[in-house]
Amino acid sequence: MTERELPSIDNQGAISIAPYRYAACVEYAGSAYKGWQRQKAGNVPTVQQYVEEALSKIANHPVSVVCAGRTDAGVNGTYQVIHFDSLVSRPQRAWVMGANTHLPNDIAVHWVVDVDDSFHARFSALERRYRYLILSQPVRPAILNKGVTWTHKTLDIELMRKGGEHLVGEHDFTSYRSVNCQAKSPVRHVKSLNVYASGQMIVIDVVANAFLQHMIRNIAGVLIAIGAKEKPAHWAKDILDARDRREGGVTAPPHGLYFVDVKYPDTYQLPASPLGPHFLNTSG
Amino acid sequence: MTERELPSIDNQGAISIAPYRYAACVEYAGSAYKGWQRQKAGNVPTVQQYVEEALSKIANHPVSVVCAGRTDAGVNGTYQVIHFDSLVSRPQRAWVMGANTHLPNDIAVHWVVDVDDSFHARFSALERRYRYLILSQPVRPAILNKGVTWTHKTLDIELMRKGGEHLVGEHDFTSYRSVNCQAKSPVRHVKSLNVYASGQMIVIDVVANAFLQHMIRNIAGVLIAIGAKEKPAHWAKDILDARDRREGGVTAPPHGLYFVDVKYPDTYQLPASPLGPHFLNTSG
Repeated sequence: MTERELPSIDNQGAISIAPYRYAACVEYAGSAYKGWQRQKAGNVPTVQQYVEEALSKIANHPVSVVCAGRTDAGVNGTYQVIHFDSLVSRPQRAWVMGANTHLPNDIAVHWVVDVDDSFHARFSALERRYRYLILSQPVRPAILNKGVTWTHKTLDIELMRKGGEHLVGEHDFTSYRSVNCQAKSPVRHVKSLNVYASGQMIVIDVVANAFLQHMIRNIAGVLIAIGAKEKPAHWAKDILDARDRREGGVTAPPHGLYFVDVKYPDTYQLPASPLGPHFLNTSG
Repeated sequence: MTERELPSIDNQGAISIAPYRYAACVEYAGSAYKGWQRQKAGNVPTVQQYVEEALSKIANHPVSVVCAGRTDAGVNGTYQVIHFDSLVSRPQRAWVMGANTHLPNDIAVHWVVDVDDSFHARFSALERRYRYLILSQPVRPAILNKGVTWTHKTLDIELMRKGGEHLVGEHDFTSYRSVNCQAKSPVRHVKSLNVYASGQMIVIDVVANAFLQHMIRNIAGVLIAIGAKEKPAHWAKDILDARDRREGGVTAPPHGLYFVDVKYPDTYQLPASPLGPHFLNTSG
């Protein structure tokens, strides 16, 4: 461990510039947490709170983290990228092993790397990728029951795929975002939206520059209704064109949702991880 | 619901013959339970206890169940077959839906069917199948952390496969069973033992007429050591030939183990379920 002299400390003693910036990758099962974001009430368990507490123990000073994408209560992450600043320089392996010792079993840090000050986990991100996992069978599943969305309805994957095609491209996704969504613009660029089987599951796999609040869960709700033949595939586009959340479908549950990838400019050279969740048999 | 007159009730009021026999399939995530078997101490949570309590509520009388294979604490089941006797005849769907309403989220009944009195979940079984799931990566997994066995060691699947080949056939598995195993004979017939990748996991997939206590976990411990090149593939056979548990390897953890199938004579016509766990991409 080395410690550099601080560039600047304000008169409350707060650190205005910490000399070392790190990027890290966090995996978590979301079912036990009220989402990613730390909340003011101290008794609300969030992933950010546990990650900050673990890193603070390794740093020996309070650490705040910024994430690539805040996930809702119950949503999972396999490749959530964060950045944080620290007064101390430690080997990357020391950060990883140390943090994992202090984290609960359902949160793990996969890597920590040094990055320059220009890296920002949220603002430097070029695109995000989510997978939504659905299990269609007559009876609710016991295994992974908080990590997949179950429906007793029989789903037609080809119809879901056709519905999803209407959403690819740059669109105003007002009808697919939560009425509480704080984003200034409802326009997002969906780069790909695939629907495929993996094991006994159906996966909705979406890449976009960024996502609006509840956007994927609202897309999943619409595609499930289409797959169940309650609505035609074109309904996905009718909803989009309406630019009105009230025209949308139900918001599908959070348990099936996994934040699986985020891309940054190559200059940062962040490590790639195998695409998660680890039990899926698709590297695509 | 119909109720037949009892063939016989003894003078303590215990039912000696209940007129209706049912077979059922139970799926469970084992991490919250001290194994399948009900224990005398009432405060020890077991899968059998929850299943019996749920079925008793539907039957309106105490129900006892017999299973195809008792699983240890922490071990999972995707196709555990049971039988039970009841005084009442109810539609199969009523048993399934009713039981699932009363079961915790990590236990589910998939089907219930009528069988004749000759069916016995344990003694009628011709063969059982288990899958042992291993995740080999530098950092412990957060997702499914209680449903897979993690090792930081790099494993060579081909070597594990070669080691496993030595165990196929009818052998004395004394070296691979727990010193506490109660079975009269240590001879078991391993009909197949495959090792393959699925997603980022390695699966050890074993079919045998029956298994001894800890047999698959002991096989997994040996094959992991072989895959990590700590021992040669032939070690699996050296251990077998020693017929001495002290020559064996470590007992691998229970979390990666899944009881996935059991075969009965065709005359019973039990429903087949897709081979579990549901997230694996292998129907084999």
